Amino acid sequence: MTPNSYIDRLRSELDEALHALAFPVQPEGLYEPIRYTLELGGKRIRPILTLLACELFGGKRTDALPAAIAVEVFHNFTLLHDDIMDQAPLRRKQPTVHCKWNTNTAILSGDRMQILAYEYLAQTPTGDLLEMLRVFNRTAAEVCEGQQFDMNFENSLEVSLDDYLEMIRLKTAVLLGASLHIGALIGGATNRQAEALYRFGVGMGMAFQLQDDFLDTYGDPQYFGKQIGGDIQANKKTFLLLSALQLATPAQHKQLLEALALPPEAAAEKLRRVKALYDELELPRRCAEAIRYYYDEAQRILNELEGDTRAKEELRNLAQNLLYRED
Amino acid sequence: MTPNSYIDRLRSELDEALHALAFPVQPEGLYEPIRYTLELGGKRIRPILTLLACELFGGKRTDALPAAIAVEVFHNFTLLHDDIMDQAPLRRKQPTVHCKWNTNTAILSGDRMQILAYEYLAQTPTGDLLEMLRVFNRTAAEVCEGQQFDMNFENSLEVSLDDYLEMIRLKTAVLLGASLHIGALIGGATNRQAEALYRFGVGMGMAFQLQDDFLDTYGDPQYFGKQIGGDIQANKKTFLLLSALQLATPAQHKQLLEALALPPEAAAEKLRRVKALYDELELPRRCAEAIRYYYDEAQRILNELEGDTRAKEELRNLAQNLLYRED
Repeated sequence: MTPNSYIDRLRSELDEALHALAFPVQPEGLYEPIRYTLELGGKRIRPILTLLACELFGGKRTDALPAAIAVEVFHNFTLLHDDIMDQAPLRRKQPTVHCKWNTNTAILSGDRMQILAYEYLAQTPTGDLLEMLRVFNRTAAEVCEGQQFDMNFENSLEVSLDDYLEMIRLKTAVLLGASLHIGALIGGATNRQAEALYRFGVGMGMAFQLQDDFLDTYGDPQYFGKQIGGDIQANKKTFLLLSALQLATPAQHKQLLEALALPPEAAAEKLRRVKALYDELELPRRCAEAIRYYYDEAQRILNELEGDTRAKEELRNLAQNLLYRED
Repeated sequence: MTPNSYIDRLRSELDEALHALAFPVQPEGLYEPIRYTLELGGKRIRPILTLLACELFGGKRTDALPAAIAVEVFHNFTLLHDDIMDQAPLRRKQPTVHCKWNTNTAILSGDRMQILAYEYLAQTPTGDLLEMLRVFNRTAAEVCEGQQFDMNFENSLEVSLDDYLEMIRLKTAVLLGASLHIGALIGGATNRQAEALYRFGVGMGMAFQLQDDFLDTYGDPQYFGKQIGGDIQANKKTFLLLSALQLATPAQHKQLLEALALPPEAAAEKLRRVKALYDELELPRRCAEAIRYYYDEAQRILNELEGDTRAKEELRNLAQNLLYRED
């Protein structure tokens, strides 16, 4: 991410606030994994959005800090439980909780984090708490639905591109939207303004997730955090693969399925053949267009909103940096 | 449980309301296990407490219905996740969710139920929502802590009777208290009255859990739902075992450890020898006294509360029926 002094300052404030959270000493087995999870770092995008949204409408960002912590704790709870379900060994290059401790610990600490998120949300000193709670509840429910769809897709042969877009909207985009929505309500926005900012966040989230799909295949290995081609090796149903399946001629479809069936030993060959088909189908251009569509829509919504000029500029930069990020 | 027309009527109303909950059709894999869990039945004690507490202070019980659903959904969520952690195959004589579906489904459906509880709580039409949310959050956190302590105790050699009492307070009693507390707030109670009713519920919960320990060893097989002696066979740290370890002379202590070490083939012999030691140490009397202590304290608190005579009488009966229950 391009250095940005104001965003960096917000991130430091959030890191400090998360570090300073006071947990009971006992039971250690419940609270240690929570502290560990929250200290693994991360870009803190969601809570930064909450703080900026509050400032956009003239609120004090200290008023939005508890809600910012709430969305970050909720996000980390979903990562914790997703990692159990995906049997992931690492998260941010460190052992996942279910590996470092065990699955029961990961389940229960995650449950506790979900409650913790509500505890912080309830500490919000200004604004319509009931409305914030409604947005938070709806979003949390949608994130679960997105995770379920994502798991279903792994074993399903009939996933359409629309199904996929709806899944990433639920699993990723709505929480970015809700982080802004809640911050806006705290800052004194009308429901209408807060909802517009929500749509900006959802659009940003869609663009961000599609960019992630793109970079996994086409990213620069020097900058992209993960191994390039991981999605292709895992036959993961992404925007690229689902577009390819939808656009391929019968002959290309056959070639694609043959390439996908190549064994792990033929990883390089598989990557080469699938990418060649993607290129034939002009997927880099199509994916870039889809990203641009969501990005432009998001910027349009932001431009139409009246609010603090600096916060608006920071949100614009943040969206841009997220999209042209290097990791 | 002794038939009681009013309580039975509330239970039917709750069963109907739970049955009528509308869930999205998709994703089926997320919502089917939730419906399954909520339709497994149960005594619906917690939501009944919420409705009665509301009526005690002159509230309409329809106003307390969403919160009643919230506490029941939360309780069932904890059972769902506890069953994964305990690797339990059955719940209410039916396959547990992680057995009928799989562990990932059980984790995610449980997560969704936790959010569902907050969704219903937020639908409460009257009373101080922030205060209800605080009580609910604190209680939910304590239930997680209780579950963690319970898991710790399995592998710990140094559990005192006080540790155990604190564990059952957190894991079981506080949710009974909170169900009443929240109902009371909805009914228009002052914080002071609602807190008194909370303490009544916690006392009831303690008495109820100790009674459960007692019946597991001394219950009538004809009426007790589970196999008599299950706790002894599993060397489970209960009020009886922890009291025995605390009260035993060195000779009795040695005998007890020898009996506990008997293999599963010697189940009948183990039960006989452990019970003989319990009897020598007068544990039936001691356990009955502990139950009576919590029960009397709870009744004293209830008697001192002013409120609707009928609701008060029903709460008194409910406590009594719970204690002298047959299952």
